[in-house]
Amino acid sequence: MSFTYNRLDKDDVALLMVDHQAGLLSLARDFSADEFKNNVLALAEIAKFFDIPTILTTSFEDGPNGPMVPELKEMFPEAPYLAHPGQINAWDNEDFVAAVKATGKKQLLIAGVVTEVCVAFPALSALEEGYEVFVVTDASGTFNQTTRDAAWDRMSQAGAQLTSWFGVGCELHRDWRNDIEGFGGLLAGHLPAYANLMQSYSQQSQG
Amino acid sequence: MSFTYNRLDKDDVALLMVDHQAGLLSLARDFSADEFKNNVLALAEIAKFFDIPTILTTSFEDGPNGPMVPELKEMFPEAPYLAHPGQINAWDNEDFVAAVKATGKKQLLIAGVVTEVCVAFPALSALEEGYEVFVVTDASGTFNQTTRDAAWDRMSQAGAQLTSWFGVGCELHRDWRNDIEGFGGLLAGHLPAYANLMQSYSQQSQG
Amino acid sequence: MSFTYNRLDKDDVALLMVDHQAGLLSLARDFSADEFKNNVLALAEIAKFFDIPTILTTSFEDGPNGPMVPELKEMFPEAPYLAHPGQINAWDNEDFVAAVKATGKKQLLIAGVVTEVCVAFPALSALEEGYEVFVVTDASGTFNQTTRDAAWDRMSQAGAQLTSWFGVGCELHRDWRNDIEGFGGLLAGHLPAYANLMQSYSQQSQG
Amino acid sequence: MSFTYNRLDKDDVALLMVDHQAGLLSLARDFSADEFKNNVLALAEIAKFFDIPTILTTSFEDGPNGPMVPELKEMFPEAPYLAHPGQINAWDNEDFVAAVKATGKKQLLIAGVVTEVCVAFPALSALEEGYEVFVVTDASGTFNQTTRDAAWDRMSQAGAQLTSWFGVGCELHRDWRNDIEGFGGLLAGHLPAYANLMQSYSQQSQG
Amino acid sequence: MSFTYNRLDKDDVALLMVDHQAGLLSLARDFSADEFKNNVLALAEIAKFFDIPTILTTSFEDGPNGPMVPELKEMFPEAPYLAHPGQINAWDNEDFVAAVKATGKKQLLIAGVVTEVCVAFPALSALEEGYEVFVVTDASGTFNQTTRDAAWDRMSQAGAQLTSWFGVGCELHRDWRNDIEGFGGLLAGHLPAYANLMQSYSQQSQG
Amino acid sequence: MSFTYNRLDKDDVALLMVDHQAGLLSLARDFSADEFKNNVLALAEIAKFFDIPTILTTSFEDGPNGPMVPELKEMFPEAPYLAHPGQINAWDNEDFVAAVKATGKKQLLIAGVVTEVCVAFPALSALEEGYEVFVVTDASGTFNQTTRDAAWDRMSQAGAQLTSWFGVGCELHRDWRNDIEGFGGLLAGHLPAYANLMQSYSQQSQG
Amino acid sequence: MSFTYNRLDKDDVALLMVDHQAGLLSLARDFSADEFKNNVLALAEIAKFFDIPTILTTSFEDGPNGPMVPELKEMFPEAPYLAHPGQINAWDNEDFVAAVKATGKKQLLIAGVVTEVCVAFPALSALEEGYEVFVVTDASGTFNQTTRDAAWDRMSQAGAQLTSWFGVGCELHRDWRNDIEGFGGLLAGHLPAYANLMQSYSQQSQG
Amino acid sequence: MSFTYNRLDKDDVALLMVDHQAGLLSLARDFSADEFKNNVLALAEIAKFFDIPTILTTSFEDGPNGPMVPELKEMFPEAPYLAHPGQINAWDNEDFVAAVKATGKKQLLIAGVVTEVCVAFPALSALEEGYEVFVVTDASGTFNQTTRDAAWDRMSQAGAQLTSWFGVGCELHRDWRNDIEGFGGLLAGHLPAYANLMQSYSQQSQG
Repeated sequence: MSFTYNRLDKDDVALLMVDHQAGLLSLARDFSADEFKNNVLALAEIAKFFDIPTILTTSFEDGPNGPMVPELKEMFPEAPYLAHPGQINAWDNEDFVAAVKATGKKQLLIAGVVTEVCVAFPALSALEEGYEVFVVTDASGTFNQTTRDAAWDRMSQAGAQLTSWFGVGCELHRDWRNDIEGFGGLLAGHLPAYANLMQSYSQQSQG
Repeated sequence: MSFTYNRLDKDDVALLMVDHQAGLLSLARDFSADEFKNNVLALAEIAKFFDIPTILTTSFEDGPNGPMVPELKEMFPEAPYLAHPGQINAWDNEDFVAAVKATGKKQLLIAGVVTEVCVAFPALSALEEGYEVFVVTDASGTFNQTTRDAAWDRMSQAGAQLTSWFGVGCELHRDWRNDIEGFGGLLAGHLPAYANLMQSYSQQSQG
Repeated sequence: MSFTYNRLDKDDVALLMVDHQAGLLSLARDFSADEFKNNVLALAEIAKFFDIPTILTTSFEDGPNGPMVPELKEMFPEAPYLAHPGQINAWDNEDFVAAVKATGKKQLLIAGVVTEVCVAFPALSALEEGYEVFVVTDASGTFNQTTRDAAWDRMSQAGAQLTSWFGVGCELHRDWRNDIEGFGGLLAGHLPAYANLMQSYSQQSQG
Repeated sequence: MSFTYNRLDKDDVALLMVDHQAGLLSLARDFSADEFKNNVLALAEIAKFFDIPTILTTSFEDGPNGPMVPELKEMFPEAPYLAHPGQINAWDNEDFVAAVKATGKKQLLIAGVVTEVCVAFPALSALEEGYEVFVVTDASGTFNQTTRDAAWDRMSQAGAQLTSWFGVGCELHRDWRNDIEGFGGLLAGHLPAYANLMQSYSQQSQG
Repeated sequence: MSFTYNRLDKDDVALLMVDHQAGLLSLARDFSADEFKNNVLALAEIAKFFDIPTILTTSFEDGPNGPMVPELKEMFPEAPYLAHPGQINAWDNEDFVAAVKATGKKQLLIAGVVTEVCVAFPALSALEEGYEVFVVTDASGTFNQTTRDAAWDRMSQAGAQLTSWFGVGCELHRDWRNDIEGFGGLLAGHLPAYANLMQSYSQQSQG
Repeated sequence: MSFTYNRLDKDDVALLMVDHQAGLLSLARDFSADEFKNNVLALAEIAKFFDIPTILTTSFEDGPNGPMVPELKEMFPEAPYLAHPGQINAWDNEDFVAAVKATGKKQLLIAGVVTEVCVAFPALSALEEGYEVFVVTDASGTFNQTTRDAAWDRMSQAGAQLTSWFGVGCELHRDWRNDIEGFGGLLAGHLPAYANLMQSYSQQSQG
Repeated sequence: MSFTYNRLDKDDVALLMVDHQAGLLSLARDFSADEFKNNVLALAEIAKFFDIPTILTTSFEDGPNGPMVPELKEMFPEAPYLAHPGQINAWDNEDFVAAVKATGKKQLLIAGVVTEVCVAFPALSALEEGYEVFVVTDASGTFNQTTRDAAWDRMSQAGAQLTSWFGVGCELHRDWRNDIEGFGGLLAGHLPAYANLMQSYSQQSQG
Repeated sequence: MSFTYNRLDKDDVALLMVDHQAGLLSLARDFSADEFKNNVLALAEIAKFFDIPTILTTSFEDGPNGPMVPELKEMFPEAPYLAHPGQINAWDNEDFVAAVKATGKKQLLIAGVVTEVCVAFPALSALEEGYEVFVVTDASGTFNQTTRDAAWDRMSQAGAQLTSWFGVGCELHRDWRNDIEGFGGLLAGHLPAYANLMQSYSQQSQG
């Protein structure tokens, strides 16, 4: 059974951030609140770093779901920002699909809250339309580990690839020599354990 | 490898509630008792909300397995209520299969106690007969997480899709505009965290 | 070292519900949302059942902390309902202390969100003033288990007794014969596992 | 601060088995069902082995709580078997206290279901009357680890000592030479890991 | 993708118990010792109940691995009992394969210690030869959950089905009416939670 | 037994940050790296907010232990910064004790890496000299939860009070009206779950 | 669906140790530090024992990632030791691929830090080129169990087989009789639980 | 309440290693086998490093409990090596107590298997005789975390101090300048995470 490794390609990928809203985030309990916020922002920063077309979408921002996490909105001031008026699967919103198609990319990174709905539904829809789908698992949250496991299994069986923000960053960057400082800084900002390594190294170098 | 996303369709789906009996529920220890009861009732309420044909089945109600959870019986007073007289796999009961076929649906939601038997056996039988099977993982319980994981793997490898009551509700509803109040109320009733959001929002709106 | 067992006495105890507000509840992650809501309401129902003077207090209800959980407000329409205008320790609010003293009781049940602040501070203050303090641990929530453990240790070392809503109910009731139906119904309503036993028993009795 | 080590003394100790009833056992979820049953029977066997006066007590055996675990009843055919007619704290039942006093012992081993009620209440009462109380933690079960931790803390602060069935057996036996075969057999019967050691040893000895 | 549900068939299945030896059992730490011993004996009893050809095999019984668990040996006095003299994969032992073939069955239940070796190797070998392989996951143990998960994934991807002793028993029994007493007794003996239900029921019936 | 609640008093407390060095942080595994870094910085920010005298100390900064976490150094440019040249217990360093005494405070907040050494030793020494010691448990890290639990028990038995950065902040602030904006901003910066509440509230207020 | 069991063959396999560097190891938190070090060294010892061509590779050894774990370097003094100058996927380094090809093997064992990058990327590349890939899961580490699970799923779906150092050793050895002493010693050195068995056995033999 | 910090003093302390026997170690499941072996050897090495009088004791070495862990015996060739012939509490063995008294020390470090018996009993006995007792928690093992927690509580309430091998080493060493190389080497040998720091540092220093 032959396998083709279609790597994430920074020139052929778009990022979909689905319903990372202040209210909904309180539903995500498969990560600590600290870790989840950090993961979401790290993914956003990666998209910015590699200049990846990013689409933000929300549902019922004016209601209890609350506003899009403000840091995301600030990081992508010119990104399509789509409130899907009622559809639960963002892919059912024509404007959203149009925005995705307008990017002209065939790989999609998807993250959102909650995993089995806001991530899984558009992921399955996009797979059906032939996109290569990469689920950014640690920037997606849900009620508990049970429903997460079920959602992962469903998406994986359908052909989605499960990854993480760190894996995405590394797969896009390919070679440290493309920008050591920039990429290192990005990692250190979101990986305290790596920042520690850099600080120890840096002091000793100057010592 | 192409993938087709056959969504849950409220006009083409039936729900099978298998052996949610008072005695057997005490065997399910992969959820806290509070959470499990809540999950089971939430799934039932979803079926009612979308008017999905529902079949209740029990085994040995008069013996140690105990009676069907009374809330379920009350919610579906006109649903087929089948005591499978001895068969462990409900699908081996001709009346049960007849009731399933009588619904005329080709998608089946299955939940029950215990997962590796009362859910897995009819799920595998239904898959063999060409049904699309969706296992409602969090409305199904068993002895511990090890046997649950094994059962999930077996069903998933055979082609069943793993989902949760929340995922089911959202996949069926498709669009909030179909009934915001009703669906929101249903969620709030079973997701205290979401109810909290609604209460905060509601007070501020009136403030 | 002699020990005196001062039991909870329904004629000498008051209940303090501190800051169970819709917003703050989203901070409590040492319980699942389902379990926590159930625990809080069970405690409230116990107070109502035994006619225990209950004091509700909130902080900044009009701000992000959100409104008191509405079920609580409805259950105690005539209870003192005190918004402590800024004090973090409710005991620093003179009106609150006055309300506590007005009950004339010397035992206090305390529950709240978050444990190390809204429960621990008034608990320590009350201990200093000579009250017997019982912390209802499972109707009190906080960020994670680490901070909970630290808070429990601090209160326990100061002389508070740690208990749970079920323990409180049983210690107050003393004898089932005081009201079998009523107390059994209360337990069954909040302990699905116990409800299951009652249903099995009841069916067989009628069988 | 001086400390006196009052060891468990087989000639000065009684065992109280409180409410180990078939129904109530389904409420104990801080152990797996296998482990808990094993722990309870091991404790009973220890009492029998050392000929320790044992008192069995139940609450509402004819109702949903169900009958005393039959193995216990069979092991102690002549032990006082007391149904406390309504009192939740067994110590409130005069017959029970009379039975305890009739043993003439001043050390009490207590185990039961659920820990924060059926164990904690009589433990606190017995401490107040000057008994040395040893809680057999792993033959006592409750809803979850949170309420268990709270109950342990309350009893420990009041002066109870926390122990386990294995610790109890060893503290009573004192010296293997008193009965190597008997005590080893008892352990092997309830500690599969120890049975394994014995089997390996025994085969090699014969080899 | 069509699916055929080849159920476990008591007339077409054999059981392989691989290296359940007293020494090796101490390596299995993904279950508590109590639970694991219980699971292994439950599986054996099922095989006996349904008269399923069973093959016991051990490795280096005279060395540190220790003797076969004696209860197993006693339960199957006439079963092929094969010491594979050095082969790590039991399937590399011609006598073992001959014994399997001699049963004439095409379904194999496999359990053993440790999962990724003593279970996985013969499972993969048997799959290659066209057997239907069912791994009895909870009667198989290993060092920790990480290596277990890896082993499960490898076997599942190769086509093995993951099951549990309870699932096996129910899939073989098919219909309670075949022998209610016998099968119920078997379950109660290894499922304390089910035994509790039976005892409650039984008392009430007699009451 | 009477109890006096000596609250944390912002005018009578000093903070000791012990050995939060880039290398040593990699040893702290009882928190995720994200959470621990967040907790440490939150505590530091609290000290700054309330203008609490703070003492930073390190051991062997030029060796493998690595430099003090740079953010801490930047936040307290004028704080005593003491490298204890070899003493493992910072309190054995005369300069350190002198710096503590120079603050003139009698309450000490202590945090550090690793808990059972760098926190516990100076905590026990300070208790002996009559200071009131508050251990900031979640800004202190160690190898695993077992050694943490042991260290907490030892310090608690000696009279230290266990608290958390959030508890410290609230106990010092006493009344929100002292500075709503400032304190709220501090919390939101380190509690994403609280920031979510504020963002939802804020949008709706403006809506 | 037919399955071929291509066993690990000591004459047709090479081992790739990717980025086991002193700094990066501090990022691996899905194992305790003790266990992970033990697993990595055990895998290396197996390669040495079976004389398997081994390739060591590192990234930025002179920077914060730190040097290759010295024990590995010492164990394979003549192995290709390749610093990939910037490529994140070692397979993008032509020298690395050349070294792999030079071994002439078609099975590859891969372990590294972190799993979703340093292991997953070369694993996927090697699969694409037709190698049989075996991921040594417990000698590979990453940030937490969530990202590990995602990485395992991605590799498994692509056709990699998940295994462990113990499974690798046993699959390569095939038959204890090839070298009982040597292989037993290797296991005992890294499996304290097995060493215990051997010591008990050995003493009794001499007794 | 005044507190005196009696530090561990290398000139006034003895170490008791109780029943670390090959067979019994298989009963200790509150640590992984790797970690536990490492902890036990680390403690022994500390005793050797500081030349602390050490007493080894075993029970029934010739039976299933198996021989003392050989590494311990080799490290202390001249230590009193006492087989307590039948007494379960080592302190009941006159020779053992005599050996303890012969050391002339008043502080005792105690570690053993299993915690609630082999550690707790001599610890309580030693406390009664006025010794200062330090329990080395992570070099002591038992069946599970429940019985460990109960045993810790009992010993702590009686006045024992809970510590860990790392805490013991640091409390004894007091000042790194006493022997940087030696103590650093000891730590690195048992703390892979610390060894990593040293290797990174060392390479960079030479770079």
